[in-house]
Amino acid sequence: MSYRILETDDIPGYLRERGHWDDATDIGVREVSDGNMNRVFLASSADGTRSLAVKQALPWVRVAGPSWPMSPDRADAEARAYAQVAKVAPDKIPAIHGYDPENHALVMEDMSDLEVLRTRLNEGEPYGPHTSARTGELVAQLSFATSDFGMESAERKALIAASVSPELCKITEDVVLSEPYIEHEHNHWHEQLDDLAADFRADARLRTEVADLRHTFMTSAQALLHGDLHTGSIMVGEREGAHVVRVFDPEFSFVGPVGYDLGLYWANALVSEERARALGTLSDHGDQLRLSWEAFESEFRRLWPTRVDTFFDDAYLDRFLRRVWTESLGYAGTEIVRRIIGFAHLTDLTTLPDPVPASRRALLLGRELIVRREELSTPEHVRALL
Amino acid sequence: MSYRILETDDIPGYLRERGHWDDATDIGVREVSDGNMNRVFLASSADGTRSLAVKQALPWVRVAGPSWPMSPDRADAEARAYAQVAKVAPDKIPAIHGYDPENHALVMEDMSDLEVLRTRLNEGEPYGPHTSARTGELVAQLSFATSDFGMESAERKALIAASVSPELCKITEDVVLSEPYIEHEHNHWHEQLDDLAADFRADARLRTEVADLRHTFMTSAQALLHGDLHTGSIMVGEREGAHVVRVFDPEFSFVGPVGYDLGLYWANALVSEERARALGTLSDHGDQLRLSWEAFESEFRRLWPTRVDTFFDDAYLDRFLRRVWTESLGYAGTEIVRRIIGFAHLTDLTTLPDPVPASRRALLLGRELIVRREELSTPEHVRALL
Repeated sequence: MSYRILETDDIPGYLRERGHWDDATDIGVREVSDGNMNRVFLASSADGTRSLAVKQALPWVRVAGPSWPMSPDRADAEARAYAQVAKVAPDKIPAIHGYDPENHALVMEDMSDLEVLRTRLNEGEPYGPHTSARTGELVAQLSFATSDFGMESAERKALIAASVSPELCKITEDVVLSEPYIEHEHNHWHEQLDDLAADFRADARLRTEVADLRHTFMTSAQALLHGDLHTGSIMVGEREGAHVVRVFDPEFSFVGPVGYDLGLYWANALVSEERARALGTLSDHGDQLRLSWEAFESEFRRLWPTRVDTFFDDAYLDRFLRRVWTESLGYAGTEIVRRIIGFAHLTDLTTLPDPVPASRRALLLGRELIVRREELSTPEHVRALL
Repeated sequence: MSYRILETDDIPGYLRERGHWDDATDIGVREVSDGNMNRVFLASSADGTRSLAVKQALPWVRVAGPSWPMSPDRADAEARAYAQVAKVAPDKIPAIHGYDPENHALVMEDMSDLEVLRTRLNEGEPYGPHTSARTGELVAQLSFATSDFGMESAERKALIAASVSPELCKITEDVVLSEPYIEHEHNHWHEQLDDLAADFRADARLRTEVADLRHTFMTSAQALLHGDLHTGSIMVGEREGAHVVRVFDPEFSFVGPVGYDLGLYWANALVSEERARALGTLSDHGDQLRLSWEAFESEFRRLWPTRVDTFFDDAYLDRFLRRVWTESLGYAGTEIVRRIIGFAHLTDLTTLPDPVPASRRALLLGRELIVRREELSTPEHVRALL
């Protein structure tokens, strides 16, 4: 048997074959593909009491088609990441019912009752009190468990080897961590940002700092990352009166610098704040960097006494967390910049009546986060930039 | 066919089977095993015009026997490292005629006309003008070629995955980068060093700095290393009037921080200097850190314009080299300390009539290199510590 592309009509049989559903006649299926890369189907029983999602990676980028080939092995990385998170934070990811490496397909929890965080924010809703706290905790739980603090040395080496992800890391290395600072056909921006885009390309200090962050991304094997932790990779909602946060789509997962996950989340939080400010809907946006950092730090410190390697002392923990903080700020800066003058932009800004003022503010903030990350030592210092 | 332990009598047939030698009746063999880990045989023709070495990794530590098992896969790491160096610095390693992964055996150049650098130094000889320069160049050539500067991103990820070396890295993580700073049954030292050994175990600042270097060793995937670059891993001599330097035994090779290779060499150079000072045979010992650094730096800078990834700018090169320098000093310090109060000591010191004064000086120097590495910015600053 070899890889086959699943169509809507294949899903009932597929779920029965794989042992997920006994009665294939009682399955209604609809395709709900939404992200750029993959196909997603929702299967549900006629009475609505049971449902599952099936996500398949195609051998190309879904929205581009076969002219942009992309190995479906990225689904292996996603399944591996879910398996690691499931050990330490099962409540913060969708339940995974099975992974089929042959077809690069995941069968997982139906989350259609939840809402993508970015969508909710774009509609003017606040983050609410739990979203950033749960996200920061997730990063702490995953990164601690897959660092040399939480995992035995030999097991870690095997994880590093199994988790290398050349194709998807290359996308980040190029699209996020170099193209916006050079002339590149991928780049585009609002014409009223011409001056800043040119300034950024000519800024030698900025270039060197981004080169540093890029090299760290390529060489710093601290822990397993989500790898693409933006507000479109988080679903939120209520279930039985409880606030639910589910982080999904970890297909960019690899063993890298912990600050990359936090930084991506912070960049998206800061951009959402610019949107809300522009629209006059500012509520709790300005607290999210601090809330996610505090949740990350306190969860990491809570886990510290359980470390497998007690040679690492408390003073080293302080130093390590400080470095994660600093690198997170830098990656936040690169993520903001690339989302405005790079390849893939954010609806947070593009759907504003006038995206220019918010985009200019965000770009300048991004630059400051990159070049001044060493001196910005608290969330309050970051607030002072705004 | 499966792994078999080669004995002296097996070597002629083995070399013929593997296609290295046609006439098996014309081979004289002697075992010359010397290091702790492996067996080495020298095969030569009756007329002395032809010779080869066969090195086999046993499934245990040779000097300890089967009671200390050790995967012979370490020979795979050695063969992989030789293959990488052969691409960029073939003149600085023994010629490799073949690797037999089944039997974990390398067939290689006979270097019995050369001398181990440590042996020569222990006999009171100087380094000579080429040894440290060639060694520094080798580190630059290997590390540049296997860094993100010299190797395409995807190929690098494959190298990282192929080169993980859990068992041998764990030895370094434990024996070099933690045990000397805690109570451990491996540790031993001259009784007149009791006070310093106790001081080092009680030194919180030292512990934190070593924890930092240790975490960097575990996470910083900068380039393929030799992994054990001490003066016992280098052979020197003259051939046809030319000075020859051959670095060998890269079985501890893995993708790690470049400074680890330089640091090990520097530690051994500094200890050799203490020996020479104690014996009154000091000659060029004090120049070797500077000579190897200058050779490393100038070769790395010479290669820089050939980098595959030009996003890395010249200012980033300066920053990268500065970090390599700083980490090298730290690793030099850890190597000195572990060789005096840790598991495996150096004949440089143990064979002195009174090893105590030189050992005390070296230990204190090692500590300074670790805790003050950030402020020691030139070879002259290091000299000033002595």
